[in-house]
Amino acid sequence: MLIDTVDYVRGELRIIDQTLLPAKEEIISLGDVDELAEAILSLRVRGAPAIGIAAAYGVLLHLENLLREKAGGERRYFFDRKEGTADFDSSSLDWDEISASLLDASKHLAGTRPTAVNLFWALDRMNGTIKRSRSGVRENCAAVAREAFDIHEETLDVEMRIGANGAELIRDGMNLLTHCNAGGLATAGYGTALGVFYAAAEQGKDFSVFAGETRPLLQGARLTAWELRRAGIKATVFCDGAAASLIGSGRIDLAVTGADRIALNGDTANKIGTLALAIFCEREGIPFYIAAPLSTFDRKMEDGGQIPVEERSSLELQYIQGVKIMPDGVGTYNPAFDITPAGLVTGFITELGILGKPFKDNIRKMLGGNG
Amino acid sequence: MLIDTVDYVRGELRIIDQTLLPAKEEIISLGDVDELAEAILSLRVRGAPAIGIAAAYGVLLHLENLLREKAGGERRYFFDRKEGTADFDSSSLDWDEISASLLDASKHLAGTRPTAVNLFWALDRMNGTIKRSRSGVRENCAAVAREAFDIHEETLDVEMRIGANGAELIRDGMNLLTHCNAGGLATAGYGTALGVFYAAAEQGKDFSVFAGETRPLLQGARLTAWELRRAGIKATVFCDGAAASLIGSGRIDLAVTGADRIALNGDTANKIGTLALAIFCEREGIPFYIAAPLSTFDRKMEDGGQIPVEERSSLELQYIQGVKIMPDGVGTYNPAFDITPAGLVTGFITELGILGKPFKDNIRKMLGGNG
Repeated sequence: MLIDTVDYVRGELRIIDQTLLPAKEEIISLGDVDELAEAILSLRVRGAPAIGIAAAYGVLLHLENLLREKAGGERRYFFDRKEGTADFDSSSLDWDEISASLLDASKHLAGTRPTAVNLFWALDRMNGTIKRSRSGVRENCAAVAREAFDIHEETLDVEMRIGANGAELIRDGMNLLTHCNAGGLATAGYGTALGVFYAAAEQGKDFSVFAGETRPLLQGARLTAWELRRAGIKATVFCDGAAASLIGSGRIDLAVTGADRIALNGDTANKIGTLALAIFCEREGIPFYIAAPLSTFDRKMEDGGQIPVEERSSLELQYIQGVKIMPDGVGTYNPAFDITPAGLVTGFITELGILGKPFKDNIRKMLGGNG
Repeated sequence: MLIDTVDYVRGELRIIDQTLLPAKEEIISLGDVDELAEAILSLRVRGAPAIGIAAAYGVLLHLENLLREKAGGERRYFFDRKEGTADFDSSSLDWDEISASLLDASKHLAGTRPTAVNLFWALDRMNGTIKRSRSGVRENCAAVAREAFDIHEETLDVEMRIGANGAELIRDGMNLLTHCNAGGLATAGYGTALGVFYAAAEQGKDFSVFAGETRPLLQGARLTAWELRRAGIKATVFCDGAAASLIGSGRIDLAVTGADRIALNGDTANKIGTLALAIFCEREGIPFYIAAPLSTFDRKMEDGGQIPVEERSSLELQYIQGVKIMPDGVGTYNPAFDITPAGLVTGFITELGILGKPFKDNIRKMLGGNG
């Protein structure tokens, strides 16, 4: 059930343009860091882990473009995820100049979206690699490429492990609940919350998934419904306002969402509307899990109050499919994320297993052992 | 701040076509009961009190059409809200035949939407008038017209009194919260929840209103924002999924919504998403009021579990502005209403005052004295 959400193929940073789904499945190639920044801002590529991978590849694409420029266009490409780094003569190249330019590109990408921590985590790894000195310029370039490919491949491996760990919670006949899209499209290709569902389906379990449509950008209706359908899993979409009625009706057995950033006490930033589901689940005694890799835990945040929440453009509310639905002169409140307090979370499904309460101690232990 | 939502003018049943707002403010004339039924089903006219008035006028329009037919087209119109009933020769008319046809029309209209009780309340009044025998056919026709005009004018008067009663809750500087549209467009022209805000604004109070956009049909973004803007009241729209974050942020002081049906214990059916607001308000200790006329209380319903909740078409979720946003093969959950348990309601703002707890006793007393 893997999706080619983000990839680096023969010198090209390729993404599925998620704004066109489900009507159109189109892979686009991003020409430079500016095009990637636009793609992140406009949610052509989205989802905390996918943004991290795309940003790492953005730094690599910038290196590719620098090398192409120096080579005078004689070489078609330098880097490819499967082939690795090509042989090339780096004797005329100045690493100080290149690395400064790469760090600039990294800084530019870090400014695109404030909430998902995986973006900063991936760029920190890239920056560390750029700054480490090696025997030669080609070796330095190859190390940058290797780091980006590692981020992608490790993330995919982590997702498969999250899926396997979470699938244990799912039994035949369950009605599952999720929000927004924490699937292959949001990640390295398998998913976090949806990865859990995929792993359970691959084990032959029979269940149904309810997905909130997730206004304003409808990632639930557009993307999660598309992924579940593609995977042959029974899906039902509802308006975000119907969540209290649905959960209160007693037909949901278990909720699993993704996360954009998790503080050290377990407070979790995720797509706007997640907090509502957590509150309704608590009222009804329904388990509410967050599926996320360790890279989503922020070692610098003691609690959710410190997590910056992106407020997005009024246009997302004012227009639907290009049609203006609100009169002029009316304000909007459009945060992209909300913070679910740790107390409402039953557990975190990570690549190392399911982490229960007390979260503060357990998160520190988990991160300490895998820093 | 009155709106000409529904009116009966020189033989015509006129409504504002609410599906065209806010882009276009268009008054349409409905030709017969079938056209009215379509207008109710497709939400061209909507809101519990407005549907009641429109249905009463639908019966009158049916009578108008019958009389026109008998008169062979020689008279332009028989009924008008301001002029009343025209003089006409009824000697050749058979009241048994006419009244049977009127009761059929009433039955047809009663089948349009199941949840709002005002529809049945208004049609019950019309049926009672149709069945009461008087001295002559013209007198019977005039009584039917008078009943429809009374329903409209009494409802408007009731709304002004609800507004005055509720305005006492509002103080300068408050941030108020509402859902869907319980304004002039949903009623006789002034509103229930929005009527409370209008009355406070007319008293010179300065406050701000936050309105949930109310998917799937966006009555908050389209209609409430339009009404508030028209009345010069500061308005902010948010996605339904952002309600928990907004209310949790501490900036809301008071919530007021309308209702489609209220059971004798205070359980309240209102637009899907209302329950969520009530739950979040309870968590934050924010007062949550329902503004509704006595005609919204259902004397036959002991509690909310008995209220029928309309499930609407999947198309409302699958398409936005004619564009398909969901893939094929995916189910929908699309109830038009949810039931807020009485325990989450702070009080009911009615034409007789604000009704507090214990609701069961107080509702019975109030209805008993004004049956």
